[in-house]
Amino acid sequence: MLTAEIIAVGSELLTPTKIDTNSLWLTERLNELGVELKLKTVVGDDPARLEETVRDALGRSDLVFVTGGLGPTEDDVTRQVAAAAVGLPLVYHQDLEDNLRERFRRWGREMPEINKRQAWVIDGAEVLPNPNGSAVGMYVDLGGTRLAVLPGPPRENQPMFNDFVLPKIREFSGAIVFRRRVLKVSGIGESALDEQIAPIYSAYEDVQTSVLFNKSEVEVHLRAAASTAEEGDRINAEIAGKIVEKLGIAVFSTEGEEMEQVVARILVDRGETVSVAESCTGGIVAQRLTDIPGSSAYFVGGVAAYANEMKTGMLGVPADLIERFGAVSREVAEAMAQGMRERADTTYAVSITGIAGPAGGTEDKPVGTVYVGFASGDCIRSLHLLLPGDRYLVRWRASQAALDYLRRQILKN
Amino acid sequence: MLTAEIIAVGSELLTPTKIDTNSLWLTERLNELGVELKLKTVVGDDPARLEETVRDALGRSDLVFVTGGLGPTEDDVTRQVAAAAVGLPLVYHQDLEDNLRERFRRWGREMPEINKRQAWVIDGAEVLPNPNGSAVGMYVDLGGTRLAVLPGPPRENQPMFNDFVLPKIREFSGAIVFRRRVLKVSGIGESALDEQIAPIYSAYEDVQTSVLFNKSEVEVHLRAAASTAEEGDRINAEIAGKIVEKLGIAVFSTEGEEMEQVVARILVDRGETVSVAESCTGGIVAQRLTDIPGSSAYFVGGVAAYANEMKTGMLGVPADLIERFGAVSREVAEAMAQGMRERADTTYAVSITGIAGPAGGTEDKPVGTVYVGFASGDCIRSLHLLLPGDRYLVRWRASQAALDYLRRQILKN
Repeated sequence: MLTAEIIAVGSELLTPTKIDTNSLWLTERLNELGVELKLKTVVGDDPARLEETVRDALGRSDLVFVTGGLGPTEDDVTRQVAAAAVGLPLVYHQDLEDNLRERFRRWGREMPEINKRQAWVIDGAEVLPNPNGSAVGMYVDLGGTRLAVLPGPPRENQPMFNDFVLPKIREFSGAIVFRRRVLKVSGIGESALDEQIAPIYSAYEDVQTSVLFNKSEVEVHLRAAASTAEEGDRINAEIAGKIVEKLGIAVFSTEGEEMEQVVARILVDRGETVSVAESCTGGIVAQRLTDIPGSSAYFVGGVAAYANEMKTGMLGVPADLIERFGAVSREVAEAMAQGMRERADTTYAVSITGIAGPAGGTEDKPVGTVYVGFASGDCIRSLHLLLPGDRYLVRWRASQAALDYLRRQILKN
Repeated sequence: MLTAEIIAVGSELLTPTKIDTNSLWLTERLNELGVELKLKTVVGDDPARLEETVRDALGRSDLVFVTGGLGPTEDDVTRQVAAAAVGLPLVYHQDLEDNLRERFRRWGREMPEINKRQAWVIDGAEVLPNPNGSAVGMYVDLGGTRLAVLPGPPRENQPMFNDFVLPKIREFSGAIVFRRRVLKVSGIGESALDEQIAPIYSAYEDVQTSVLFNKSEVEVHLRAAASTAEEGDRINAEIAGKIVEKLGIAVFSTEGEEMEQVVARILVDRGETVSVAESCTGGIVAQRLTDIPGSSAYFVGGVAAYANEMKTGMLGVPADLIERFGAVSREVAEAMAQGMRERADTTYAVSITGIAGPAGGTEDKPVGTVYVGFASGDCIRSLHLLLPGDRYLVRWRASQAALDYLRRQILKN
């Protein structure tokens, strides 16, 4: 199996506020090609350390990617350092300068002389064109080990990889590709899920399966090794099918979608609409449902009924219900959903009332107590939850639970 | 100036879905101590590569941090690899085993034999206690170069650094500390801002200033080098004061706060309340205002009035206003704010109506057209914006603009 390293260049990536996220995308592409990432390094604009890092990487990995540091300023040291690391001179490419001048002219500007620095290329390297920026990339085959130097910005880096580097790797990356697929499951814990599906996935030797808990759901990551992408996808689909057969409605996505995307798809397919009444989540469910382009097809509106007066005034929750059972109660959740649905005239409504903390908990109703309500034309229901976590997590998990409750109620009909 | 490297260990950090964020916290602490981070590496559970990485790091940096890989399983190779890299044997600490057994017993469990692996420590290393987990840390002074091996989980790693590593570094880190301060500014571009404040910050030689654009605001990061923390804080405060004097109300925070925290503080200080009526943002403003603990003190409620029927039915926007001017108009924004404020009975109300895209734009009102409305007891106003970006960014920027408009209107009174 081929091994790779990624070296990200830039002093800003060594500050407390910035992180290299570029490499995540590149890792996924490499894995799909059957290449395993063995090391990631972040180096500042420090020629000595960068040269050492590139040289070390070339000594132990089949593929070395250097990203960033190709700009026109003094701080951009990648070009000369990469050349030094492979022991080759830089050569001036007049055609690159001409291209750059032409490009600046089209923008109605004169090319600053400093940009001539971007016309220097490692001797013998293949120039990788950059339609989205001024820095070209470089690809050098050092007899077995390959070095690819790519610009830092994702919108330059990613197309350059896809168009020029990927085809090259495919030529020698051998017979195996990796294909990923993510299933998402609600309402069942990590270990219980693993216990149920282990007999399914362990029958597939060429698939690496991981079961991960993520905030309020469990994800099943499949990574099939196969001789073609189609074969890998087929194996993943086969396992996904068996897991759905086993777990049923608990699997809310076999394509790695977010819960709101799944709910949106179901509503659009059925030509139905929804409205939401939220207390402790204060608009998270409405915001998630409207994150999706085209959400006006199914989302009519919502009320963030934080104060009790909002619940009575805008949703018609009877004040005596709040008095008798408390604002955080099954009765109020149901009245909120019912009132919301009537006022917005939607197929369904969901509601949330709860205690997100840190204050407001009591012995009877501790922080994390949440009621989710649901109303359709012919039924009103609710769900009682005790959610763990801090304010952020309780609110997030309540929103996820409400969307999942909506999904399950719709699918049960 | 002392230099440091951070090596994060774990194969999961080399997948497309996980990233090392631990190092950000550590970087900030190191910078505060006047230590500069020169390199970050992520290595998998691969003994040969890890040993090489640790050895290389010790050869060039004053301080080397290795985080993660201290668990009890076969995959956890950091302990033996770190020992090999410094050329020292591992020594068994019976007292650590006894402690672990005792700890498991308190949890009502038997210590698995595998955990005995966690009682091996590099010969001569100082043991760093871990009250929050089973893996102790190690600190080795190799005569000039120092190696600190810390567990991966932040809630183990961070207290261990603060309690045991930080005091040691302070002993030899010399006379200089770094102190950071972040100012946030709205309504002015990056270059225009820089032009205005450069004469202020360039007078301070020991302060490194960076001006960064972040989604919908500009941040000014100050990093003062000083002989004491107090002195550094004093210099930062002096510069912050001068910038506020120059820019006035445009500076919405001198403490790096989020816009919603600033608005919340202002409302709480004044004992006032707010409600929000949102169309294209579908609840983002309500959600942001309720993210903050204790938000019921100032937030009464909101309406996500996505469909026109919600605007007329729940906010009392006259239907003929929508017909004449369109749902995305100054008139409707103002009517939404006014209707919201009356219904929620709050000191202020803000509203948003706009076109977030990707569809829905026209020649007159392209994607990104947003109107923000404001209502108080004695005035109703609005703001017209044309926001750049995709759906996510338009929605985010609209929510930020609405909160900022609210802030400015309140402060102008």
